Amino acid sequence: MIKIDENLSITSPIGFKASGIHCGLKKSLLKKDLALIYSDVVANCCGVYTKNKVKGAPLIVTKQHLSNKKAQAIIINSGNANTCNGDDGLLKAKKMTKLCSKELNIKNDDVLVASTGIIGVPLNIDAIKDKIPELVNNLSNDIKSAKDASMAIMTTDTVEKQAGVEFEIDGKKITISAMAKGSGMIHPNMATMLSFITTDISISPELLKEALKESVNISYNRVSVDGDSSTNDMVLIMANGLALNKTVTEKNEDYNLFLDALINLNIHISKKIAKDGEGATKLIECTVKNANSIKDAEALSKSVITSSLVKAAIFGSDANWGRILCALGYSNVDFDPERVDVSFASNAGEILVCQNGSSVNFDESKAKEILLQDEIKILINMKLASSEATTWGCDLTYDYVKINGDYRS
Amino acid sequence: MIKIDENLSITSPIGFKASGIHCGLKKSLLKKDLALIYSDVVANCCGVYTKNKVKGAPLIVTKQHLSNKKAQAIIINSGNANTCNGDDGLLKAKKMTKLCSKELNIKNDDVLVASTGIIGVPLNIDAIKDKIPELVNNLSNDIKSAKDASMAIMTTDTVEKQAGVEFEIDGKKITISAMAKGSGMIHPNMATMLSFITTDISISPELLKEALKESVNISYNRVSVDGDSSTNDMVLIMANGLALNKTVTEKNEDYNLFLDALINLNIHISKKIAKDGEGATKLIECTVKNANSIKDAEALSKSVITSSLVKAAIFGSDANWGRILCALGYSNVDFDPERVDVSFASNAGEILVCQNGSSVNFDESKAKEILLQDEIKILINMKLASSEATTWGCDLTYDYVKINGDYRS
Repeated sequence: MIKIDENLSITSPIGFKASGIHCGLKKSLLKKDLALIYSDVVANCCGVYTKNKVKGAPLIVTKQHLSNKKAQAIIINSGNANTCNGDDGLLKAKKMTKLCSKELNIKNDDVLVASTGIIGVPLNIDAIKDKIPELVNNLSNDIKSAKDASMAIMTTDTVEKQAGVEFEIDGKKITISAMAKGSGMIHPNMATMLSFITTDISISPELLKEALKESVNISYNRVSVDGDSSTNDMVLIMANGLALNKTVTEKNEDYNLFLDALINLNIHISKKIAKDGEGATKLIECTVKNANSIKDAEALSKSVITSSLVKAAIFGSDANWGRILCALGYSNVDFDPERVDVSFASNAGEILVCQNGSSVNFDESKAKEILLQDEIKILINMKLASSEATTWGCDLTYDYVKINGDYRS
Repeated sequence: MIKIDENLSITSPIGFKASGIHCGLKKSLLKKDLALIYSDVVANCCGVYTKNKVKGAPLIVTKQHLSNKKAQAIIINSGNANTCNGDDGLLKAKKMTKLCSKELNIKNDDVLVASTGIIGVPLNIDAIKDKIPELVNNLSNDIKSAKDASMAIMTTDTVEKQAGVEFEIDGKKITISAMAKGSGMIHPNMATMLSFITTDISISPELLKEALKESVNISYNRVSVDGDSSTNDMVLIMANGLALNKTVTEKNEDYNLFLDALINLNIHISKKIAKDGEGATKLIECTVKNANSIKDAEALSKSVITSSLVKAAIFGSDANWGRILCALGYSNVDFDPERVDVSFASNAGEILVCQNGSSVNFDESKAKEILLQDEIKILINMKLASSEATTWGCDLTYDYVKINGDYRS
């Protein structure tokens, strides 16, 4: 049984250090905006990236530097996405890695870069340059440094997102930790989601990549919606091997343990991201079961979780299940509306509100009580076959509009 | 030159009468909720309907009754969509037409039915039944009756939507008028859009259908988003021939005049729907030009007009063009981000904010002045080929959340 530990951080796996400081990209002196993750040794590393046609300059540089599947450090800034800045953006992303590698005395292409914030505003590279010595100097494996780093990658996030998991392989303790910044909006497709995962497992680069992809598909990619993603979305994982287990090179029991732990960690972080969506007051978890295929279940679930009308109804604790049927109906998935059951559930209980596509008599006050909780489950039974998928999102609130009405100022 | 006249109503074409009353589906006695449109003679009639997999009972009945392409009356209620009510819903939709035909002394299948409102709550057919005599008795061709009808189909609409157009064919004056209820939400895909068009032209049912489809594709279907549509969306047109023009039976100049007038009228009504989106303070018009195909231009434009982040930025009069690039990027259309130009325009002028995919220096105060107006144009130049499309939407505001947080109460 995998147990997530919120006291673990990206510096918990052996040989990882981190730091986070204020360099001036964010106006407030109190807000950190520059982070560094460092491994004592060169680590196997890989990433998954946005599918957006418009890509941030940092993505392009990071992909290039990962062509050898190795890295030792990741520098991340918030406050500016360094996207849509043409050649100037690319030069500055490269410069970030160069300045960092020089200060760390490691190879330039072992440094990766990520950015998040406003699009289309030239990056103030001098502010970063001036502070790189301090950033490197602050590197430490203590909890505070990991916290500093996770604070420094936040934009409109209200809480930092960090957790870890421990398990044993080959008699050695393996740790995987992750820190992330929220998609921070209704749809992760429209603002940046960044996640950085550190682990001390020894694993081949090929299996590392496979495990990352498989876990991302059913975690980060199921927060609200995927496919549609922001210009800068990125998930990176570094595995430095310092746990000294026998290197995992095939899909055996050890690999499955690692994969399982990684999936659980990424789902945990994904739910934190969904719950901290901009202005959100509630986490919504939508499970579609007994669909014809996982693809269908996922499409149906995403259609519900991204519906503005469903999200607004959950904000108002309104058991308006008709909007759920409507959202299923425009998902482009084939199904029989007259078989669908819908229930709401939370810590306060579970209630069936729609049976065979039609209204059932239900206790409105009980439904209200269930929907007033801060973690709401929408359970949908298609009664067609046996495939299932769960996606996560949040409610739509006044504060969402407030936050996004004037993000730049 | 086609000129839209807001003083024309659905009773302006020769031989059309209307009425609108309160029957009790809406709680407030002041709010009308039952409407009737009647033609003195049986008219050629056709419709386009939602593509949602979940369909309202009224749609099913209306489609059946239109199998002979003829109709003489349309009964419409607001306050209850009569959807997801199983067989009971279908029986009640049929009963609405039956009661109406009896009172009007016309054939049952010459009566069509439409409903809008809450989904999944049984329809109070008795309230309707009791008031049908009054509804029929109130039929009149005066302006007030048309206004009553257009008020009676509203849900969260804040203004009634009615207009008409006049032109000449064959020495005869032809009138086309339309009344509509707003999609009334961010995405028309999630609440009901109804439009009823009356005209006295004499035209073959085949050409009437073709003209309706062509005009709907570039008007109602370009408000925010199409494809994804609500359970009850419907556009119906009745052509009763009482203008006594030589019947239009081929695609000649007369047909083109009619089509052109119909397109202009439907675009006019579509813009009114977009501007009256729930909580909206601004109409947004997004034109994508020089795309590789009309399909591409439409997909790109829709991706921008439906972006919550773009809509929130326009609400805040914030020239955050990076969100526009981002929305283009996740539209699944192939293009070169480094060619894209973006401008904002309104009554206060026009300003280029992005050139070749990168930031340009622009006067922020001028941009603010432009974006503070209530009709905002987003102009996007893809610089690829010569195809163009325009879509309409509205800003995302606090009031949207307020209206939809507890729609049922």
